[in-house]
Amino acid sequence: MANSKYEYVKAFEQPDVLLPNTWIVVRIDGRGFHKLSDRYEFIKPNDRRALDLMNAAAVEVMKELPDLCIAYGVSDEYSFVFHPSCQLFERRSAKLVTTIVSTFTAHYIYQWGSYFPSMPLQAPHLPSFDGRAVLYPTTRILRDYMSWRQVDCHINNLYNTTFWTMVQKGGMSNTDAEKELQGTVSSDKNEILFKRFGINYNNEDEMYKKGSVLYRQYQLEDPKPTSDSKSGTLGDDGEPALVQEASMSRSQQDKVRKLRRKAQVVVDHVDIIKDEFWERRPWILSGKPGKLPTEV
Amino acid sequence: MANSKYEYVKAFEQPDVLLPNTWIVVRIDGRGFHKLSDRYEFIKPNDRRALDLMNAAAVEVMKELPDLCIAYGVSDEYSFVFHPSCQLFERRSAKLVTTIVSTFTAHYIYQWGSYFPSMPLQAPHLPSFDGRAVLYPTTRILRDYMSWRQVDCHINNLYNTTFWTMVQKGGMSNTDAEKELQGTVSSDKNEILFKRFGINYNNEDEMYKKGSVLYRQYQLEDPKPTSDSKSGTLGDDGEPALVQEASMSRSQQDKVRKLRRKAQVVVDHVDIIKDEFWERRPWILSGKPGKLPTEV
Amino acid sequence: MANSKYEYVKAFEQPDVLLPNTWIVVRIDGRGFHKLSDRYEFIKPNDRRALDLMNAAAVEVMKELPDLCIAYGVSDEYSFVFHPSCQLFERRSAKLVTTIVSTFTAHYIYQWGSYFPSMPLQAPHLPSFDGRAVLYPTTRILRDYMSWRQVDCHINNLYNTTFWTMVQKGGMSNTDAEKELQGTVSSDKNEILFKRFGINYNNEDEMYKKGSVLYRQYQLEDPKPTSDSKSGTLGDDGEPALVQEASMSRSQQDKVRKLRRKAQVVVDHVDIIKDEFWERRPWILSGKPGKLPTEV
Amino acid sequence: MANSKYEYVKAFEQPDVLLPNTWIVVRIDGRGFHKLSDRYEFIKPNDRRALDLMNAAAVEVMKELPDLCIAYGVSDEYSFVFHPSCQLFERRSAKLVTTIVSTFTAHYIYQWGSYFPSMPLQAPHLPSFDGRAVLYPTTRILRDYMSWRQVDCHINNLYNTTFWTMVQKGGMSNTDAEKELQGTVSSDKNEILFKRFGINYNNEDEMYKKGSVLYRQYQLEDPKPTSDSKSGTLGDDGEPALVQEASMSRSQQDKVRKLRRKAQVVVDHVDIIKDEFWERRPWILSGKPGKLPTEV
Repeated sequence: MANSKYEYVKAFEQPDVLLPNTWIVVRIDGRGFHKLSDRYEFIKPNDRRALDLMNAAAVEVMKELPDLCIAYGVSDEYSFVFHPSCQLFERRSAKLVTTIVSTFTAHYIYQWGSYFPSMPLQAPHLPSFDGRAVLYPTTRILRDYMSWRQVDCHINNLYNTTFWTMVQKGGMSNTDAEKELQGTVSSDKNEILFKRFGINYNNEDEMYKKGSVLYRQYQLEDPKPTSDSKSGTLGDDGEPALVQEASMSRSQQDKVRKLRRKAQVVVDHVDIIKDEFWERRPWILSGKPGKLPTEV
Repeated sequence: MANSKYEYVKAFEQPDVLLPNTWIVVRIDGRGFHKLSDRYEFIKPNDRRALDLMNAAAVEVMKELPDLCIAYGVSDEYSFVFHPSCQLFERRSAKLVTTIVSTFTAHYIYQWGSYFPSMPLQAPHLPSFDGRAVLYPTTRILRDYMSWRQVDCHINNLYNTTFWTMVQKGGMSNTDAEKELQGTVSSDKNEILFKRFGINYNNEDEMYKKGSVLYRQYQLEDPKPTSDSKSGTLGDDGEPALVQEASMSRSQQDKVRKLRRKAQVVVDHVDIIKDEFWERRPWILSGKPGKLPTEV
Repeated sequence: MANSKYEYVKAFEQPDVLLPNTWIVVRIDGRGFHKLSDRYEFIKPNDRRALDLMNAAAVEVMKELPDLCIAYGVSDEYSFVFHPSCQLFERRSAKLVTTIVSTFTAHYIYQWGSYFPSMPLQAPHLPSFDGRAVLYPTTRILRDYMSWRQVDCHINNLYNTTFWTMVQKGGMSNTDAEKELQGTVSSDKNEILFKRFGINYNNEDEMYKKGSVLYRQYQLEDPKPTSDSKSGTLGDDGEPALVQEASMSRSQQDKVRKLRRKAQVVVDHVDIIKDEFWERRPWILSGKPGKLPTEV
Repeated sequence: MANSKYEYVKAFEQPDVLLPNTWIVVRIDGRGFHKLSDRYEFIKPNDRRALDLMNAAAVEVMKELPDLCIAYGVSDEYSFVFHPSCQLFERRSAKLVTTIVSTFTAHYIYQWGSYFPSMPLQAPHLPSFDGRAVLYPTTRILRDYMSWRQVDCHINNLYNTTFWTMVQKGGMSNTDAEKELQGTVSSDKNEILFKRFGINYNNEDEMYKKGSVLYRQYQLEDPKPTSDSKSGTLGDDGEPALVQEASMSRSQQDKVRKLRRKAQVVVDHVDIIKDEFWERRPWILSGKPGKLPTEV
C-alpha cells in the first residue's frame, strides 16, 4: 500500500499502560470555572443547579463505564475510581482519562439547559474540563485520598459559607470579610455564623457539607460489630483478592460488567471518612457486585 | 490544618511533562462512531453535516489554544499540532490532551443542533472522543505524520466512494461490493467509478478527497524556486530555531500568543504532502507569526 | 557564566521517580553468561564457586544499601528488594538500578580471583550485568514475585541436575538427554535420578535447590499458631504501616538505617514460599528493624 | 507448569522504550568520588592515572557497543552517545544504561591495578558509578549538550588549577584560596596563575583543559569552506536521514555494526564546540561508517 512509506511514524506512539493491581483515580476539574461562574451568575457560595448538573453528568459517566466503582464530587471537580482489577482499555492512561473527560463534558453541555433554563450557554464561552489519572497502591491509601477530598470539601465550604454570609447578610466588603477570617479555625467560623447570623452550620445542606458520593446500589450489609470487619470481603492480607480478578476470563469480566450495569447509580451525601460507609457497602472495595435490592 | 493527615496522597501524582523541543500531536478519535453514525443516520460515504461539525469544533479548539499551529481532520478523527517551542501547561501531557478533548467535545455537542437540525441528540447516546499525545522529534517526521494521515484519507475515501456507489447506485449487496473490491488497486477503483457510473473521482469534493487543514491565515509567501526553500525560515540545520523560542520570556510568549489570536483560522482542503503548502505558509513550521493579510 | 548558553539542555532530563509506597524490586542478570560460563569453564549443572561469588557480591550490595530488606539469587540473576517506605535517592529509578548494578559488578570483578584462583579474568571478556526496576503494589504480590523466582529455581535445577547426570554419568549425548526429558514432569525426573543413578534429589545441596536468600539477621520470632499471624507486624489492613514510615523525618530515617547496618547480613537457602519464613522474620516485610540477637 | 500460578507477576514489568529517532546520551558519574579520591590519594587538581583509567574503561565500552558513536569524559563522569537510528536492545532505557554502567565498572575495577600499581583497592571501598539516559531530539541540541560538558570542563579546570596552585605552591589555606577566588572571572584566574606563579594556563595539558573525546577513527574529510558544510552528510533538512536508517533490515544493521567494530577507537583532547571537529568527522553525526584509513 502506498501508505507504507509514512507508516513508520506509528512507532512514535509510546505505551502508557498503568501499573496493574493499583487503584486508578481519574480526577477532572472545571477549566477556568471561577470566571465561568461569574459569566453564568452562579449563586455563592453554592449553586445547587451547578452542583446538580455536575452530579447528573457524573451519573452518566458511571453508567457508561461499569468498571467505575465509586465517584466523589465537590465544587467543579470530580474523582472517578477504577478498581485495581480493572482491565478496561488495557489500563491505557490517556484512553481512560479522555473517555471520562469527554463523556462528562458531553453530558454537562447537553444537560445545561435543564439546569439553567434561563441562562443559555454563550459560545465560545463553553464549560470544559481537564483531567489526569493517579495511582494508589493500597486500599488504605485510596481511602485516604477520598478522605482528603472530603475534608477539603468541609474546610472550603465552612470558609465559603462564613465568608459569603458575612458579605451577603452582614453587608461586609469582600476584603473586610477576608481579613477577619484570616487565621481563624473551624470553631471561630461556626461561632461567627451562629452568634451573628443565627446559622447553625450543622443544619446546612448535606450536599454542600459532604460533597456527592456516587456508587452502585446493592443490598446494604449489617454494620460489623468489631474492627475485624473487613475479613469477609477482603483477602487474608486485607487487600481485595486482586490476583484472581485480574486473571478473570474476558467472558467473566463481561458478566460482571453486566451485573454492574443493572445496579442503580445513587447520589449520596454522606461521610466517607469513617469505616461505616465502606463496611455496609463492601462491593465498592471488593470489586464484586453485591445482591441487588430486588433480590432480597 | 486538619487536612494535613491525608495530604500525603498528593505525592502519588506523577509528572508527565513531554520532552522539550519536540512536535506534540494530540490526535482525537470519535468513540464508537460506527454505531453512532447509524443512530443519527449519517449519509454514506461522507456526511457533509458531520464533517462540517467536526471542522467547526476544531476551529474553536484552534481559537481557544493559540499555541496550536495546525490541525488536520478526516472522518471522525482530528490531529492538533503544537510547535516544539510550545510551553503551554508546562507541556504536561494529560493537561494538553484533556483540554483539547473536552473543548472539542463541548463545541461538538453545543453546535450539533445547527448541523443536524432535524436529528436531535438522544441521551445517553451522546458523541464523545478519546485522545492521546504523540511526540515527533523533527520537522521531517512531523510532516511524514501529516502525510500519513492525508494518504490514509485518500485511500479510505476512494474505497468508500467506490463501495457505496456500487451499493447505492449499482444496487449491489454490501458483501458483493466488498468481495469485488478485495485486492483492487487505486486505478481499478477509479475505473469502476468511471466506466460503470460515469463518475470522475477527481471531481469529487476536495474536502472528501483531501480532508480538512486548519491553520492561522497570514500573508502567503511566494513559492520558492529551489529546493533550498527552507533556509529563510528555519535555522542553519533545517530545524526551527527552537532554542531561543523555548527561552522566550513569559511576556514575549504572551505577545506571540496575542498575535496568533488575531489571525483568522481557515479551513482548507489542500495537499499537505508536497512542499508547496508549507513553503508558502512558513509560519506554521517556524512557529513565528507571519504578516496579517491586512498589514499588506 | 559563559556556560549558561548551553545550560538549557538540562531541561531534557526527565524525572523517573517510582510510585510511592510500592515494593521496588531491582533484578539484575548476567550478560551473556551462557558463553561466559563456557569461557571460564563453570562446572555443570551448578558451579559452587560462581554461586558463592554471586552471593559474596550480593552481600556487599546489601551492606552498602541498608534500605534493602531482602535479596534472592539464583544462577546468574539476583533480585534486590526495597521496602515501600524506601526514600533512597528520592526513589529515582535509574539511580537505584545503576547503583546496584555497578556496586554488584565492582565486587564481582574484585573478588573473582578469590573464587576462581586458577582461572584469571581475560579482558575484554569481563562479566557484566544488566538490571531493571519493577514495582509491586502489595505485600501479597511481592511475595508471589519471590515465590515465582524460587519455583523457577526449583524447576530449572531439577531439569539441569537430571540432564547433566544423564550426560555426565549416563554417557548420553546432549541431544538424546534433551529428547528424553521433553514432556516429563517432576516425578519423572526424580525417578530417572533415583532409579538409574541412585540419586535422591532431596539430598542435593540446598543452595542449588532453593537458591540464596539474603537478609539482615535479628532475633527470630516464635512461629504464630494461627493464620492471623500478621496482625502483630502489619497495619489493620494487612499492609505495612506505610504512611507513617514515608513521613519519617530524615533523622529518623538515618537512625533506622544505622540500626540496619548493625545487623549481620546472612545467606540462607530456605523455603520462602510458605508463610513460616516471613512470620519468623517480621522485620523483612514490616521494614522495622528487629532485636539484634545480642540484645536477647 | 507449577510456576504458572505466580507468573502473573511478570505483567508488572513496564516498557521503557525510548522515543525513536532521538539522540540517546547515557551519562555516568562516579559515586562518592570526592571521598574516594581522598582514600586513594588522587593528585589534585588532576590525577593523570585516574583520568587514564576512566578513558581506558570508556574505550572498552565503545568497543563492546559499536552502536555508540561518540563519548566524552571529564573528571569522574562520562557521556556515551547513541545515534538516533540506534535500535540496540529495542532502545530499552534500563537495558542500555545498565549495560554501559556495568561494562564500564567491570573494566575500571579490572584495570585499576595497571594504573594504580602501588595503591590496591581496599574492599569494601570500591569505585562504582551511577547513570541515566537523556534524549536530545535534534543534532543541534546534541551538540549543545556536548558543548555544555566541555565548557563545564574548562570552567572547573581553570578554577581547580588556580585553587590548587594557590594552595600547593602559594602555601595558602583552602579557605583563603576559596575566598579570594569568589566572584572572579576567567581572566582574573589566568592572571593569578601567570603573575604569581608564572603559569600560562594555555600550556596546561590538553586532556585537563578539553576533557577526552572518544570516537571511531576513519579517514578525515577536508574542512568545508562554507557554512553549508553539512549538506553532504545530512538530509535536506539538516538532520541525519533517520528514517531510512531506522528501517534498515537486521542484516544491514549487523553489517554496519561490523564495519564499526573494525574502526579504531581513539582518545582525543580537542575542541568539540566549534564546527570543525564535526565537519571533518561526518560519520559521527551521520551514523554511517566512513572510510577506514587503510582504505585510502
